[in-house]
Amino acid sequence: MGNTVDMRNKKVLGFTFLLVLTLVAAVRAQKITGHKPLLIQQQGTFSAGGTVVKSDGVFDPLKPWNVTQGGQTRHADHADVFYQIPPKAKKLSMVFLHGYGQSRRSWQTTADGREGFANIFLRNGYSVYLVDQPGRGHAGQTTKPGQISAIPDDQTWFTQFRIGLYPKFNDGVQFPKDSASLDHFFRMMTPSTGSVNEAVVVNAMSAVMNKSGDGILFTHSAGGSPGWKTATKNAHVRAIVAYEPGGFTFPEGQVPEGNRGGKGIPMEEFMKLTKIPIVVYFGDFIPSEQTEAASLNFWRSVLTTARQWAEVVNSHGGDVRIVHLPEIGIKGNTHFPMSDLNSDQVAGVLIKWLKEKGLDK
Amino acid sequence: MGNTVDMRNKKVLGFTFLLVLTLVAAVRAQKITGHKPLLIQQQGTFSAGGTVVKSDGVFDPLKPWNVTQGGQTRHADHADVFYQIPPKAKKLSMVFLHGYGQSRRSWQTTADGREGFANIFLRNGYSVYLVDQPGRGHAGQTTKPGQISAIPDDQTWFTQFRIGLYPKFNDGVQFPKDSASLDHFFRMMTPSTGSVNEAVVVNAMSAVMNKSGDGILFTHSAGGSPGWKTATKNAHVRAIVAYEPGGFTFPEGQVPEGNRGGKGIPMEEFMKLTKIPIVVYFGDFIPSEQTEAASLNFWRSVLTTARQWAEVVNSHGGDVRIVHLPEIGIKGNTHFPMSDLNSDQVAGVLIKWLKEKGLDK
Repeated sequence: MGNTVDMRNKKVLGFTFLLVLTLVAAVRAQKITGHKPLLIQQQGTFSAGGTVVKSDGVFDPLKPWNVTQGGQTRHADHADVFYQIPPKAKKLSMVFLHGYGQSRRSWQTTADGREGFANIFLRNGYSVYLVDQPGRGHAGQTTKPGQISAIPDDQTWFTQFRIGLYPKFNDGVQFPKDSASLDHFFRMMTPSTGSVNEAVVVNAMSAVMNKSGDGILFTHSAGGSPGWKTATKNAHVRAIVAYEPGGFTFPEGQVPEGNRGGKGIPMEEFMKLTKIPIVVYFGDFIPSEQTEAASLNFWRSVLTTARQWAEVVNSHGGDVRIVHLPEIGIKGNTHFPMSDLNSDQVAGVLIKWLKEKGLDK
Repeated sequence: MGNTVDMRNKKVLGFTFLLVLTLVAAVRAQKITGHKPLLIQQQGTFSAGGTVVKSDGVFDPLKPWNVTQGGQTRHADHADVFYQIPPKAKKLSMVFLHGYGQSRRSWQTTADGREGFANIFLRNGYSVYLVDQPGRGHAGQTTKPGQISAIPDDQTWFTQFRIGLYPKFNDGVQFPKDSASLDHFFRMMTPSTGSVNEAVVVNAMSAVMNKSGDGILFTHSAGGSPGWKTATKNAHVRAIVAYEPGGFTFPEGQVPEGNRGGKGIPMEEFMKLTKIPIVVYFGDFIPSEQTEAASLNFWRSVLTTARQWAEVVNSHGGDVRIVHLPEIGIKGNTHFPMSDLNSDQVAGVLIKWLKEKGLDK
């Protein structure tokens, strides 16, 4: 009897000691970084979706490098996911899909080295699932190989992403002007390793949502279009937050003129977009009239299409809000509002919307 | 006066409350996963090293998509790093470099979904820096584009990595035999996006070490060879842990016959490898005699070269230990001892070595 109590006391003491150690570490960490330390219940990587192709022939295990002999499989066209789950996570996960030429890095760290959206929302109690789409980053294995170009194009992106008309920075732009940040930003670009069509991305994203469970799908830029379609395929998408989506999904027969609407989808599928709250954010420097700069006209056309699209979704009972950030007083944002210098403010606007829609439980 | 004390009391109360919340979250997390939650002081991504190339011509910001017009730069050939720093980190960081066809995923999660080496050593108090080498994963932007193949080759890797002679699993192999794990394993492969030579990898790795500070460099397979050279270039490499390195760096004029020694380096550089503790691990199923299986002969040749190399380094005063795991009773390992089913045991062996060499302070 006495021994049992002793044992129990020892266990309690040991446990208390462990907790005190955790506590001391937490306090020390906060002193160093100015942040509370992140507490992660579970983190890791997984693949989702994709396909398997086979080559004709017979594989000889004694001469394994003779790939032309065939008889082999290739697992490809999956998404790759890095996830982090905090203790006592909120009910809805957050799933992040990058844009053209980007990877999940878009959401991890800003060009000037601050914490990205993934950290911000992890700190807010959400599980985060950061995706590399098929043919990008760690999901490089595809069924249709691509031809990679190494032609210099940093200035194309600087301009297309509305940092400025290179070499000029836009007036008041929320982008760091030091060379180290710009270097970091340019190096975030990473090429497609294959010819991956939208259906492949949508299938992979749907598989990601099956793993994340009910969640809020974040998209950026070229991720926008497959994002809408993922929501029409998979009911785990409970809301969409789109930063500067490049394309929109209209009902068949209602696609507006111009090239930003893509192909229409059956009304029955489209109606699924009317069942979830959607918010779409656009940054600054999008002109209201045609200009002589092709990149600015491009974004003007996108914003126009976004508004047409919101009207169609909402006229069918949907809940889409298009937020042109300068119109609510948030100025200077590029094509990357989530990693611009004012990303905390941009996150704050989103946090309000999440609360308003009851997505923060 | 009274107000000041009140304020201070409130602050202390608030702080205590925060700590208790952290504590409660920690306990709850441990109950769910069976692991203590990870405590992360800081995490993020960065690029290291690389180069900038320029195209002739004049960039027109009004027509940014005319890349053939030139006048642009390309930031390329860098490494990409994801890092996590625990509170009260040990003095030496751990830097992880993957092998051929792999990415930092090799170190993150095992094929059967358990925690990878990165988590294990993060829990042990080390800062971890997980690298994608130039032309791989998130570091896809190179100066010399590669041609990507999509030819099916899963069985090549299954066999080359000594899981078995496909479709046969090796007897007693420490690799999960369920189809989900195999699917996961095959999808970890990701192609090179460019023709990247060893010097490019070494330069990038040296830049990574400048950011990580003094550290223990982990290499796997094809990462082995640039790993040795990184240590000869950068004194921040304070130890090397190599899992099945594919190549070795000999002094000029002392490269053994066969194709696993690479080119020699000047003795003065080579001598730097004699100043740091090095441990090299090989798994099971490496035959002592030639066999009819090309993959097994390959690894037999590598292990032979490893031993020759250790002898040369140690004869010059070095501290290299070659550990053929079956010889110390650890059986069944593939080419990926760090993520095989017995990875905890493999980590345990390493933890002992780190302690013995005083690298765990």
